Amino acid sequence: MTGNSIGQRLVLTSFGESHGKCVGAVLDGCPAGLEIEEKDIQKMLDYRRPGQSQVSTQRKEEDKVEIISGVFRGYTTGAPIAMIIWNKDQNAKDYESLTTKMRPGHSDYPALVKYKKFNDYRGGGRFSGRLTATHVLGGAIARKLLKEVLGVDTNSYTLQIGKIKIKNQPTSNMIKSIYSNEVRCPDKNSAKLMKKAILDARKNGDSLGGIIESVTTNLPVGLGDPIFSSLESDLAKALYSIPSVKGVEFGSGFAGSESNGSKNNDLYTIKKGKIITKTNNSGGILGGLSNGMPIVLRVAFKPASSISKKQSTIDIKTKKPTWLKVGGRHDPCVVPRAPPVVDAFVSLVLADHALLSGFIKPVL
Amino acid sequence: MTGNSIGQRLVLTSFGESHGKCVGAVLDGCPAGLEIEEKDIQKMLDYRRPGQSQVSTQRKEEDKVEIISGVFRGYTTGAPIAMIIWNKDQNAKDYESLTTKMRPGHSDYPALVKYKKFNDYRGGGRFSGRLTATHVLGGAIARKLLKEVLGVDTNSYTLQIGKIKIKNQPTSNMIKSIYSNEVRCPDKNSAKLMKKAILDARKNGDSLGGIIESVTTNLPVGLGDPIFSSLESDLAKALYSIPSVKGVEFGSGFAGSESNGSKNNDLYTIKKGKIITKTNNSGGILGGLSNGMPIVLRVAFKPASSISKKQSTIDIKTKKPTWLKVGGRHDPCVVPRAPPVVDAFVSLVLADHALLSGFIKPVL
Amino acid sequence: MTGNSIGQRLVLTSFGESHGKCVGAVLDGCPAGLEIEEKDIQKMLDYRRPGQSQVSTQRKEEDKVEIISGVFRGYTTGAPIAMIIWNKDQNAKDYESLTTKMRPGHSDYPALVKYKKFNDYRGGGRFSGRLTATHVLGGAIARKLLKEVLGVDTNSYTLQIGKIKIKNQPTSNMIKSIYSNEVRCPDKNSAKLMKKAILDARKNGDSLGGIIESVTTNLPVGLGDPIFSSLESDLAKALYSIPSVKGVEFGSGFAGSESNGSKNNDLYTIKKGKIITKTNNSGGILGGLSNGMPIVLRVAFKPASSISKKQSTIDIKTKKPTWLKVGGRHDPCVVPRAPPVVDAFVSLVLADHALLSGFIKPVL
Amino acid sequence: MTGNSIGQRLVLTSFGESHGKCVGAVLDGCPAGLEIEEKDIQKMLDYRRPGQSQVSTQRKEEDKVEIISGVFRGYTTGAPIAMIIWNKDQNAKDYESLTTKMRPGHSDYPALVKYKKFNDYRGGGRFSGRLTATHVLGGAIARKLLKEVLGVDTNSYTLQIGKIKIKNQPTSNMIKSIYSNEVRCPDKNSAKLMKKAILDARKNGDSLGGIIESVTTNLPVGLGDPIFSSLESDLAKALYSIPSVKGVEFGSGFAGSESNGSKNNDLYTIKKGKIITKTNNSGGILGGLSNGMPIVLRVAFKPASSISKKQSTIDIKTKKPTWLKVGGRHDPCVVPRAPPVVDAFVSLVLADHALLSGFIKPVL
Repeated sequence: MTGNSIGQRLVLTSFGESHGKCVGAVLDGCPAGLEIEEKDIQKMLDYRRPGQSQVSTQRKEEDKVEIISGVFRGYTTGAPIAMIIWNKDQNAKDYESLTTKMRPGHSDYPALVKYKKFNDYRGGGRFSGRLTATHVLGGAIARKLLKEVLGVDTNSYTLQIGKIKIKNQPTSNMIKSIYSNEVRCPDKNSAKLMKKAILDARKNGDSLGGIIESVTTNLPVGLGDPIFSSLESDLAKALYSIPSVKGVEFGSGFAGSESNGSKNNDLYTIKKGKIITKTNNSGGILGGLSNGMPIVLRVAFKPASSISKKQSTIDIKTKKPTWLKVGGRHDPCVVPRAPPVVDAFVSLVLADHALLSGFIKPVL
Repeated sequence: MTGNSIGQRLVLTSFGESHGKCVGAVLDGCPAGLEIEEKDIQKMLDYRRPGQSQVSTQRKEEDKVEIISGVFRGYTTGAPIAMIIWNKDQNAKDYESLTTKMRPGHSDYPALVKYKKFNDYRGGGRFSGRLTATHVLGGAIARKLLKEVLGVDTNSYTLQIGKIKIKNQPTSNMIKSIYSNEVRCPDKNSAKLMKKAILDARKNGDSLGGIIESVTTNLPVGLGDPIFSSLESDLAKALYSIPSVKGVEFGSGFAGSESNGSKNNDLYTIKKGKIITKTNNSGGILGGLSNGMPIVLRVAFKPASSISKKQSTIDIKTKKPTWLKVGGRHDPCVVPRAPPVVDAFVSLVLADHALLSGFIKPVL
Repeated sequence: MTGNSIGQRLVLTSFGESHGKCVGAVLDGCPAGLEIEEKDIQKMLDYRRPGQSQVSTQRKEEDKVEIISGVFRGYTTGAPIAMIIWNKDQNAKDYESLTTKMRPGHSDYPALVKYKKFNDYRGGGRFSGRLTATHVLGGAIARKLLKEVLGVDTNSYTLQIGKIKIKNQPTSNMIKSIYSNEVRCPDKNSAKLMKKAILDARKNGDSLGGIIESVTTNLPVGLGDPIFSSLESDLAKALYSIPSVKGVEFGSGFAGSESNGSKNNDLYTIKKGKIITKTNNSGGILGGLSNGMPIVLRVAFKPASSISKKQSTIDIKTKKPTWLKVGGRHDPCVVPRAPPVVDAFVSLVLADHALLSGFIKPVL
Repeated sequence: MTGNSIGQRLVLTSFGESHGKCVGAVLDGCPAGLEIEEKDIQKMLDYRRPGQSQVSTQRKEEDKVEIISGVFRGYTTGAPIAMIIWNKDQNAKDYESLTTKMRPGHSDYPALVKYKKFNDYRGGGRFSGRLTATHVLGGAIARKLLKEVLGVDTNSYTLQIGKIKIKNQPTSNMIKSIYSNEVRCPDKNSAKLMKKAILDARKNGDSLGGIIESVTTNLPVGLGDPIFSSLESDLAKALYSIPSVKGVEFGSGFAGSESNGSKNNDLYTIKKGKIITKTNNSGGILGGLSNGMPIVLRVAFKPASSISKKQSTIDIKTKKPTWLKVGGRHDPCVVPRAPPVVDAFVSLVLADHALLSGFIKPVL
């Protein structure tokens, strides 16, 4: 595989560019017999769609998915499922001046060195956050597969925007309503503060980062393959393919490394005949395998690189310092649009491992 | 691949068990023409060898590597390089009582559910930290390859043990001497405090975690493949295969997500005719590609799970609560032995990408 | 990979169904900087297009390719190249009666057992020869890449139809004109006999098989990776994915196994300062590596399974014997449409190995 | 994977050289719970061992396998199974003169061009037929797995040596006794003629080729993944990694391409309530999937390249013509030693697909 495919038995191949004709994906290895239609995917796509609110980019894309193969009479056939979203509101002119001025924080410079003049620089081309739509295409199917066959629930939400941290640890009830606010934070009061922080940043021509938390419940014990296909390895690999992600941690994560073994170890007990742990500092993964507790992970996003503030940079042609104001339409903070993307990758990886470990069969 | 191999063009396959006959590795895809002998590998192995100091396990293993294929007249041939370390001081009896009592924080429980009675539980078997020796086998060769062909330097060191953080940001000079102290911390004063913290934890029958930082310099611009083979994706996948790792971040990482774009963006400038960035919050990676700045990443280790303190747990046979004191010989903190392992994985991943991107040829 | 992708660095992923919306492909790993436009692909597609002559199926498909990603301003960017052919003349009704009557020689029976009722049986669905169009999509690009960068020429032609064998060993001049006759045989007189044989078979409600020979010249010495990525291994794997292929041989092949080493060994000599062999019984491959001589291979196709003659079979519902006349529009012999498909796979495999061995760089 | 590993879920990695310290293999992905000991493997190794009879090389190797990981208390654990055979009778001196004189029919020339002076030329190094011992290591386990879990039987035997073809189509009874004669031909009378032909060739300083047939019974319907992981694709890929193989065909193969559809199609019928076909021209594979009939394939081996007759060649140093008599100890015909190797690859591929298709679970 050469960087555009991920997975072992459930393989997502992504294609398309931010300002090309389309973005799309091929999902191979999905078991035959899953009932699927476009609206199953559309719902998750809509949560990530641009142009929906004040906190996101003003690019208008209806992001309508079309399934063009692999589904027959409403069910998957076992053949690769190809899906396309035709780009509508691309505006490549915004990017003409960028061909020589390297945008700080973006892939412009290494991509130019690597791909030379052939790089499709328009809106970041292949490096654009827009490509995360293709991950949602596959992820929505994986998520439905996990839910239908194993009853697995995957949800993620905003835990922090800039310096604003969530006040109350979200309950499962709170999580159900995250799409009722624009920042996708389960704590409504925190959500308001977060929204204000984003709007303030936009007003200042600046941007913010933040942290997404993902929780997956009802997974059986024993998913994962030691050593290099540990759940943590495969989840981290997938999550780091999201642009702007600069940190991934599981369970107690970085904070846990300051603790003691006697505190951080999750002690076993029995509840209603089922073996569980009293705490979940491991984030549901031991030795790379699921242990039956919720998979809990957090993903750190850097502040969006595109800001309208003037920045100093280099003109690659003249090799001289210059100034740059990034035009185009951008997210002042990508975090509110990220939960469906995180859900997509968590679902893709877990569904792949459910297939690898035999929890889901190749034909339902 | 089924969990015991990693890499695309430079592929490490690990085998062996903690208390079996041996641990070993096959490194496939190493270019023909690299001068290599056992002592090149032994040096790095010795840095992670157990039984060396008060801060690590008392298991005595000389960990002597034997190259059994792939090297001819002192040079690699392009054929797979198989390497073996014969286990000497295994003591499987320590683990007999553990077959039914699930050790908190260990893989025991999910591994038993997954592999049933067939799991080799002795000392964690395939899940043991001892397997990181096999990663060093391949990593030492990858590191030499990067150094010889591209002049790349990879180093990692202890940044934090428990709550003790390093005082002074390490200089390249300080990094050179990290193996002069037992905790592998470049700041000698911090090292003393860290050592004391570990010995205190051991005395209390407890354990500590910590954080390793890795810095790689002199990498060319343009390593990495977007999207799913981004450097961050592949590095994180590799690093998460190390037991006890629960967090990985690049550049400004989790802290960066609290910042603003205008602060976190690394501005370009020119120094001695070379394009560089004034800061390095990206950790040397933009759009998944190396940008020529040092690759900087941090790895969080949870406190070692094996502690001699009494812990409550479940007996899997009786399905009743019970008590457990973990015997055997264990590290009160695995962090001081981790730098060569982190170096190994960083080197394996970067050498793989140097091959993929054409910076290193299949025959030197 | 799960059966719909092939290649290591140059990866073709195929999607679509015979009577679905479309067939298509994603080619990943093509170096940036190759000048490509739709007509480069269309030419090769046209050679395999149905409905062109008396010797092929009457299904009318214009098979017009559309490139939807990966090409920018006329050049490949290094991103995945997605290509689509929309199906026009599908007529699924022809196949309604086939859902329970298993067609002899087709995938119907094992596909039904494997995929149950979810299998897309229309026209063979995913198993149809129509899918070879998707291989030509990628193969045309690979072929151009090999030609442009290394000057490699790949051609294949009909060597035998039924019992009619080619009379004269084709010269390179003869090969140039193979598309001037309907059976794609470089020997015009043999071509006439072959055409007659096919038309006779059709008249009788029967079908024929045949043999394609492929010759590739100008390949550098040293492509291929021993052991499991030998050129023969990878070429055979690719060629066997073509429906109806039941034999693949290289150089002197099956006939060579009746010979002696002293006759079959190709002796080295020097011609114009270049090391060559006097004969080419090895088919240009020694030890799995190209040796600089032309790559010569032959592919045996079984007689087309769809015949209009009445055949006895089983009704899967009643589990009783029954009779069947295969309706629909079919090729009485698939061989004349196969040369571009064989060229496609030979090109894909050799281009992949040219990338793996460093003869072609990731960016041109 | 880089040429030394094969398989998707059951992955064999081969290492070692003909005249190095050892040859060995790592088999990854074997389900936990298979009872295995060295003698299970040794039996199959012994059938391939050199120095056993007049028809094979006089190199004496006891080829004793040692399992060094992955088996615990007599059962596989799910961990990689590493196995080693230490070389005993290597005699590298035989090859000193060969460093500049290119042996016709061998990999010497392309390997020298590709790997330069780093190639391990001793006895063919990595290209030697000796490496097929490593395939038997993994294949013996795969074969036992298929037998134990699914009752599958795989056998192969000599069908032809030089121009001597087997007289009588072998029955299953005849197949049971193939190891009672030195050429492994189930027809005793043919076997005598074949042996004489080999001894005659040796006497003349020459060599012979031949054909192996493989028959696998009792496979369930539905193994295989269309398109690129068709059973034919994966079997051919594996079989072509055996040195000297120049042809692979399934069922009626090349002969079938001279037939008519009405004759070559296998008609369905019912026997004892089971759907079978009256003939088996498909070799048990339709659409790349097993159809429940025996898998039948044939493998063509070229005459052994090492002959003691004087041959003209080129001295690579002087770039001048020269003469060569290949010394060392060689097989006048490799075919009699090939059946266990063919069995090994057929078993590895089918077991891999049995895992992929869910017929064998990851833990027994």
